[in-house]
Amino acid sequence: LEHNRSTERMIFPTVDYRRGIVRILDQTRLPLEEHVLELRGPEEVAAAIRELKVRGAPAIGIAAAYGMLAALEKIMKRGSGDRAGYLFDRVEGAREIPAHGITAENIRDELAGARALLASTRPTAVNLFWALDRIEAALGAAGDDPVQMGRRVAKEAFAIHEEELEVELAIGRHGSPLIRNGMNILTHCNAGGLATAGYGTALGVLYWAFEEGKRFTVYADETRPLLQGARITTWELRRRGIETILLCDNAAASLFAAGRIDAAIVGADRIAANGDTANKIGTLGVAILCERFGKPFYVAAPWSTFDTKIPSGSEIPIEERGSREVTAFWGRETAPPGTTVYNPAFDVTPASLVTAIVTERGIMERPGEGTIRRFAAGAG
Amino acid sequence: LEHNRSTERMIFPTVDYRRGIVRILDQTRLPLEEHVLELRGPEEVAAAIRELKVRGAPAIGIAAAYGMLAALEKIMKRGSGDRAGYLFDRVEGAREIPAHGITAENIRDELAGARALLASTRPTAVNLFWALDRIEAALGAAGDDPVQMGRRVAKEAFAIHEEELEVELAIGRHGSPLIRNGMNILTHCNAGGLATAGYGTALGVLYWAFEEGKRFTVYADETRPLLQGARITTWELRRRGIETILLCDNAAASLFAAGRIDAAIVGADRIAANGDTANKIGTLGVAILCERFGKPFYVAAPWSTFDTKIPSGSEIPIEERGSREVTAFWGRETAPPGTTVYNPAFDVTPASLVTAIVTERGIMERPGEGTIRRFAAGAG
Repeated sequence: LEHNRSTERMIFPTVDYRRGIVRILDQTRLPLEEHVLELRGPEEVAAAIRELKVRGAPAIGIAAAYGMLAALEKIMKRGSGDRAGYLFDRVEGAREIPAHGITAENIRDELAGARALLASTRPTAVNLFWALDRIEAALGAAGDDPVQMGRRVAKEAFAIHEEELEVELAIGRHGSPLIRNGMNILTHCNAGGLATAGYGTALGVLYWAFEEGKRFTVYADETRPLLQGARITTWELRRRGIETILLCDNAAASLFAAGRIDAAIVGADRIAANGDTANKIGTLGVAILCERFGKPFYVAAPWSTFDTKIPSGSEIPIEERGSREVTAFWGRETAPPGTTVYNPAFDVTPASLVTAIVTERGIMERPGEGTIRRFAAGAG
Repeated sequence: LEHNRSTERMIFPTVDYRRGIVRILDQTRLPLEEHVLELRGPEEVAAAIRELKVRGAPAIGIAAAYGMLAALEKIMKRGSGDRAGYLFDRVEGAREIPAHGITAENIRDELAGARALLASTRPTAVNLFWALDRIEAALGAAGDDPVQMGRRVAKEAFAIHEEELEVELAIGRHGSPLIRNGMNILTHCNAGGLATAGYGTALGVLYWAFEEGKRFTVYADETRPLLQGARITTWELRRRGIETILLCDNAAASLFAAGRIDAAIVGADRIAANGDTANKIGTLGVAILCERFGKPFYVAAPWSTFDTKIPSGSEIPIEERGSREVTAFWGRETAPPGTTVYNPAFDVTPASLVTAIVTERGIMERPGEGTIRRFAAGAG
């Protein structure tokens, strides 16, 4: 099976749907604990997304799709009087679905509520809305038979997961030629298996290159305020056996000045029609360093991250998060009480600073309106 | 008295010498606690410097001078059989010094040991060596009478403190015209009263402008890994009543891109003969942002921070600190065990990125070999 070949490339289950339950590796507990959350229903999935227990644009998309499936599981099991053990499972697919006592209307109402809830969690990552749209389209195409509706939605949710994993492997394969033996590569935040379906985008490129036998050093920005770089990127890279050096975000400039960085590669949360790229706060600073020191700045992202309805980066909604992420650590204050905080979760890197975007359709050099339109038409 | 006028401008005792004891506000406990350490002898002062309980180039210089005085206090009291309560006090000066049982040789040996110990604490801040040199010169000029030696060294240590405070007020006065009403000013780390004799260098400029009635907003980088910006700069600015917004270091680029920063001002730990400036890690990134977005980048530093023996920034020794500053917080891991870390305490900003250096001798525009030589000759 295709998905078995793909899932072998995962080294840990970022997000999964097994035996009627959404399973998520709780990323807020890494690297101290590898704790898998079992989430029942869209409310629990929405809370996990909001609290960054699952994060990274592609992973959020998959979690949202599974949140919709969890809503479906709930309403359809209600029809069976909860006698069915579980209805859906990523490996087994859809099992026998109890059709009595549930109408198409019930399902549509339930899923509309779940969609609204999941869509309200985080505003920047476009993959969230893209995944919800795909589930909605599948539901719309399923007709009025509850059993068919269930089958169709489940199939779509699993397809989103499987396809994303295939996409990541394609990104890794396309991007690998950018990585040469002995390179020193800077990355920011986490665009690895834990941000995605399980392999990674920016880190996927590095993983593929490593699997091809190339050896290089990755400098990982710790990525304040939530330290995804320190907690998650170092954890992933070390598990893969890749040489990794952790640094505070503000130390990157001195590495560039010393000639110790050859390229930077990051993920993306949303890419506008002109190539402007929203990604984790701090990415713009990395891109500016690449520009000043004449080094390539690469973005790796699936096509699902492109939002061609948005003309430029200035229209991408940027989530501002609570001040406590900055003013406390492990629950203890690091700033005086009442301190005012500027804490955007993302920034926008103008397309002019992006050397290339690695997608599953190939490497897009000098991204801009024209190149993106050509890729949208399937070229690459 | 001159020093009383100056000390009124301090809002807290960064470092002081009272009744035979070095008193230091423990900056590692801020902002949770305002705890004053009482240090006896050079060993305790050296440990406090090494552990960053006192930090900031000018404050380290003063602490080192007082560390030498504490060594002197110790050996001279030993001569009195410890019957004297205390010998030296910043406000009272030198009291009656017991001269029996102590030779000039004893004093020189003791102070040579103290100097070696204090000089080994931190390599980058030149003020440390500058202060130790001043004490040594005072000792050399005092002849062989133990009482005179004691008087002369104490006078020099108190003079270093008093003069630095005067210098900071002069820096504030000279720099104030750079600050206009309504400006948004970025600062990095802490170059305020707690980094200095009590008023501040970069923040001293802002304090003077504020005391003149100007109103502006300060954006304070939190300054990883030790969060001097979050813990100390916000604490100082808020106590002065200045509007302050805290941000993670990596969020500054997005503020510049949004046109929300008009200028940056920082302190310095050592300035080479060509104007290259070592300061807290992350300063270079701020300077590069100023360059890219066409905003002025100011350094404020006393003349004691210039090291004209060093031709350029590449020869400034940069302290690398332990990995645990980056991999743990409040004693709890934030990165996988065994993670390799790059953790320099400082970086070097090339003179070409520095718009001006504010010194007690005036504003030095376009710092470089020529301008620095003119300032060294007393021009300004």
